[in-house]
Amino acid sequence: MEFIDGLGLVAGICTSSAVIPQLVTTIKKKKASEVSMTMFIVLLTGNALWVYYGFDKKDIPIISTNLFTICLNIAMLFLKFKYKDNK
Amino acid sequence: MEFIDGLGLVAGICTSSAVIPQLVTTIKKKKASEVSMTMFIVLLTGNALWVYYGFDKKDIPIISTNLFTICLNIAMLFLKFKYKDNK
Repeated sequence: MEFIDGLGLVAGICTSSAVIPQLVTTIKKKKASEVSMTMFIVLLTGNALWVYYGFDKKDIPIISTNLFTICLNIAMLFLKFKYKDNK
Repeated sequence: MEFIDGLGLVAGICTSSAVIPQLVTTIKKKKASEVSMTMFIVLLTGNALWVYYGFDKKDIPIISTNLFTICLNIAMLFLKFKYKDNK
């Protein structure tokens, strides 16, 4: 793997795993009324398109990191729904 | 511009502009204690690395969308700081 591909992976790990601290915060507070659901729906749409883009460009960092983010964003939407009655 | 580059731009617009609904939610509620600051710091780091990656790969969608996201993430961090005393 070339340096730039490694850097792409690190970049992808950052932008993908960024949702993890939000998941932790939401699980701790058991509420997410201040967190925008639209944000995560738009993110999911974008991630799905990036995966398509990555396949076309045969760009492994783009594919793998966006697939990972899709899982995290779905988890966040699940928590947002779970705690929807907690204000 | 080829189809796939256009699709990359749309993907980038989605993942970049996803922060906008969060900014709107935060401005409306005037609080963001449930929004993770770590999330936006990690995102900023990732976006900066993606810009570097994009320049190396001469990939315009990656460069432009990540520069745009950097601005939005900085705005979100500013709001988080501004409303830090609102619980």
